Amino acid sequence: MAKNETRRRLIADAGLTVLATEGSRGLTHRAVDLVAGVPVGTTSNYFRSRDALVEGLVERIGERLAPSEDDLVRRSSEAPSRELFADYIRDIVRRLTDDRDVTLALFELRLESSRRPEVAALLGAWQRAGFDGDVEFNSSAGLPGGRREIALFHYAIDGLMLDRLTTPIDPETSTDDIVDDLVAGLLP
Amino acid sequence: MAKNETRRRLIADAGLTVLATEGSRGLTHRAVDLVAGVPVGTTSNYFRSRDALVEGLVERIGERLAPSEDDLVRRSSEAPSRELFADYIRDIVRRLTDDRDVTLALFELRLESSRRPEVAALLGAWQRAGFDGDVEFNSSAGLPGGRREIALFHYAIDGLMLDRLTTPIDPETSTDDIVDDLVAGLLP
Repeated sequence: MAKNETRRRLIADAGLTVLATEGSRGLTHRAVDLVAGVPVGTTSNYFRSRDALVEGLVERIGERLAPSEDDLVRRSSEAPSRELFADYIRDIVRRLTDDRDVTLALFELRLESSRRPEVAALLGAWQRAGFDGDVEFNSSAGLPGGRREIALFHYAIDGLMLDRLTTPIDPETSTDDIVDDLVAGLLP
Repeated sequence: MAKNETRRRLIADAGLTVLATEGSRGLTHRAVDLVAGVPVGTTSNYFRSRDALVEGLVERIGERLAPSEDDLVRRSSEAPSRELFADYIRDIVRRLTDDRDVTLALFELRLESSRRPEVAALLGAWQRAGFDGDVEFNSSAGLPGGRREIALFHYAIDGLMLDRLTTPIDPETSTDDIVDDLVAGLLP
């Protein structure tokens, strides 16, 4: 069977759905075949081992959460400010909220990384590279906040998303208002 | 078989270990029997259904994460201040860090609540009651920070714990330093 990128993405997207809806223990090649609607064995053909499958899913999470080219171009013409920083954070939170399955899949993989060193190595490297990229982007764009503050935003936004996508403790307050409070407090 | 509280706690603790080490899909009565080292059928005898088991685990999480009586008495004699608030947060973070299995088990249940309305109802009610209790405690102790700020601390601490117990993005910075930064930024 010819491998192609469209089919590879279709399979990876099905894998993320399986993670979000079945949890990490439900992630098997067979389950992904079923959700993707492809013949049994197709997922194995693209991703030989479970670790290879996880690696493909992590890569696909990065693609699905990336800002659009349009968004980046539009924002790059704006002067750096606290308000622009807040806009970026609101964009990230919006993508994480809208792409619920991806966000839940990422949480599942993070918990699996506490149990399986192979997943921890792969996911840890990917997360630290992303974090370094965020720090570098912020600095080169002249935005406020350095490595220390950006780490605080990672923690706060992860916890906020976990709350909002599961059992919110304070559902009356809007997510945008919470982001505004975080920016007001955590940005120097 | 006579039911007793010691045995009930032993079984609930085994259930939390199963959640932390196997994930929520691994949580079955049989798996808990095995980890608890009790005869097959014992867990079913204490917790008839899986929902009853989850309810027992949530209750046990509350017990294991509760501050000790000594801690509460010692702190209650101190004058309310930002520093005292920070001490409370550091205590919570220390308990969550030391009792790794409980914290991971709680994350597993939160993710399961995104998939199963029964778990969401139970866990959501428990979390909101805990949150209301935190707000009430803070207010009656004369500590700074209201409902809004305490929600922000919940998000930030949850995200911080998820990070620290899985694949830390910034392992060089100490957890206490991060808590200090959060208190400096998020408390009015």
